[in-house]
Amino acid sequence: MPAFPEAEYADRLAKTREEMERRSLDALLVTDPANMYYLTGYDAWSFYVPQAVIVPRAEEPPIWVGRGMDAPSAVITTRLPPERILTYADDYVESPTKHPMQHIAKVLAENAWERARVGVESDAYYFTARQLQVLQESLPEAEFPDAYLLVNWIRTVKSALEIEYMRQAARILERVMRVAVDAVNVGTRECDAAALISQAQISGTPDYGGDAPAAFPAILSGEKAGTPHSSWSDAPFRTDTATCLELSGCRLRYHCAMSRTVYLGTPPDEIKRLAEVVREGMSDALAAVGPGRQCQEVEAAWRQTIGRAGYVKPSRIGYSIGVNYPPNWADHTASLRAGDTTEMVPDMTFHLMLGMWMDGWGYEASETFRVTEGGYELFADFPQKLFVKE
Amino acid sequence: MPAFPEAEYADRLAKTREEMERRSLDALLVTDPANMYYLTGYDAWSFYVPQAVIVPRAEEPPIWVGRGMDAPSAVITTRLPPERILTYADDYVESPTKHPMQHIAKVLAENAWERARVGVESDAYYFTARQLQVLQESLPEAEFPDAYLLVNWIRTVKSALEIEYMRQAARILERVMRVAVDAVNVGTRECDAAALISQAQISGTPDYGGDAPAAFPAILSGEKAGTPHSSWSDAPFRTDTATCLELSGCRLRYHCAMSRTVYLGTPPDEIKRLAEVVREGMSDALAAVGPGRQCQEVEAAWRQTIGRAGYVKPSRIGYSIGVNYPPNWADHTASLRAGDTTEMVPDMTFHLMLGMWMDGWGYEASETFRVTEGGYELFADFPQKLFVKE
Repeated sequence: MPAFPEAEYADRLAKTREEMERRSLDALLVTDPANMYYLTGYDAWSFYVPQAVIVPRAEEPPIWVGRGMDAPSAVITTRLPPERILTYADDYVESPTKHPMQHIAKVLAENAWERARVGVESDAYYFTARQLQVLQESLPEAEFPDAYLLVNWIRTVKSALEIEYMRQAARILERVMRVAVDAVNVGTRECDAAALISQAQISGTPDYGGDAPAAFPAILSGEKAGTPHSSWSDAPFRTDTATCLELSGCRLRYHCAMSRTVYLGTPPDEIKRLAEVVREGMSDALAAVGPGRQCQEVEAAWRQTIGRAGYVKPSRIGYSIGVNYPPNWADHTASLRAGDTTEMVPDMTFHLMLGMWMDGWGYEASETFRVTEGGYELFADFPQKLFVKE
Repeated sequence: MPAFPEAEYADRLAKTREEMERRSLDALLVTDPANMYYLTGYDAWSFYVPQAVIVPRAEEPPIWVGRGMDAPSAVITTRLPPERILTYADDYVESPTKHPMQHIAKVLAENAWERARVGVESDAYYFTARQLQVLQESLPEAEFPDAYLLVNWIRTVKSALEIEYMRQAARILERVMRVAVDAVNVGTRECDAAALISQAQISGTPDYGGDAPAAFPAILSGEKAGTPHSSWSDAPFRTDTATCLELSGCRLRYHCAMSRTVYLGTPPDEIKRLAEVVREGMSDALAAVGPGRQCQEVEAAWRQTIGRAGYVKPSRIGYSIGVNYPPNWADHTASLRAGDTTEMVPDMTFHLMLGMWMDGWGYEASETFRVTEGGYELFADFPQKLFVKE
């Protein structure tokens, strides 16, 4: 069964239709797996083949269209009526002569959208250039205006139950980070630490299990502590190195993320100093969080603090976070950075990610927080410091 | 350092250029992360933002273009000269006003491809509809012919070292499947089994660590054994149910996959009968593998065998497998199915995936094999049977 009550899906669809109305869209072709999940509950690792949820502007149930073998997943994970679960034959998959979007176009045509305005998520993962071309070739009289992030912006403000799932993810995350800090030791292979972290992520807590996070554990050790998205290796952790850990807990596809740094050996003054500056910057950034304030104010507060200490961070310091599938847990809407004038409202949730990737070393600390009426609330409870193992 | 010697990358680039020549492409914009890795060694979890490797038709090193913070990963994981590692500023990321493809277009223009024929991987994951639009808007005099799968087809025939990495993945996989079969027990939560499986995948063997597989463990239990891509839950395994396990070992991004089924309780005759038919079908399918034979012959042999027993499988029974990133480990080239006339040659590698998803139950058995001069060779050594725990 879906993770939310029917009324919550109805509310999400109503908000989506309101925005469709505003943009004069007759239908919305939702292909982002997180948005398909958000609007209907559909949950399966099937997003490696084309699939879609079509939201009509009219008050009718959405239509799920996907590969034949995935229809039973739609039956199990959504409340869609059976006649709104439609499939294409298996020989459309990775075919040199047919394309699944031809079938999805046929479904659009059969539902009177042959000459309609059908919004598409033009920059969403998995909505490829070819998919749009096939739609355009198949329905030359339809229009496909861009509706990228239409649903994501609705997702940006969380419901009480979404916040609850993120809190559960935070409980998982606290265990995960404890396992991670304990696992980083001189001589231990990076892959063995990653393995224990992944186990903790998926096992979850005795009360609720973990889900597959949208990104694998990021374990940046030694000179790789300066490369934010590198992979673990099977080399052992070495003495006199820092290891940055960017990890998540994931519950029912909702994420809570956190970064910490472990130093093996006696930390040099420069990393101790940076850790202290980041701690101050975190505190000042969080103090700028609250309803009515703009996202860029959070970054400005951080920038001012670290600037006084002589540091510069050229990248954004955070982003809206919540429900997602690989490869990324961000909502792809608001960012904490200069120029982002998004006004914060209660129950927006952000990953405040203070990654300082220096030349051949690095330091990371991050927190996931919720905007509250009075300011902010951190999801996870875990010491904010440089973890030193001498 | 990259996982392959320089000569192997040179060979891959030479084959790519040969095909570019044939198609009159002046440059190839490679955006599929597996193809970027295959051609240069570039390896990072950065494919959630636009990035590319540009292969010139001329004998010059490829150009890597990506986000600023990911350039150090390009320095560490490739042998590209520093002047061929180019970056865009962080404010291009998830920006409402700028797009990273504008910067990539600028790089194309600065390298004399402003009016050139630049092949694009139009149906590859992560190459979105918007990305192509931005390229076309930025370089209106250039052409962007489809070059989807150009590199994937080269990848389809593996080198000796690629086969060696797949063998290492198979050693990991044998351990993973043993852990999995042991972990499925009445009362154990699905998530706890998934956690142990993931740990085994990433930890690997004492000799070499595992990598992040392109798909999480598929654990299909009870009625979900009929839904091939569903997720684990935190419900416990129940007695009198089958659990299908589709798992992989991953080594340096190379995959070896295997499926097995565990029955908890006394298996009904219908699943025992199906298991026997699948075993015969597997044997007959493999007997049809060999150089000079077509992919469709493998499926035909299978279909004939299971048809005699009264079974039908509406989906393909396998695909080329090898190096990949999430969300899928297939090469997306040859499939084992009716109509696929791809001629097998030695060192092609396939995942022969016999998933029988019935109404509310299912049975899976699969193997990854290599085409040899004399026929085939299975990568992993693991009993092919229904595992019963009474």
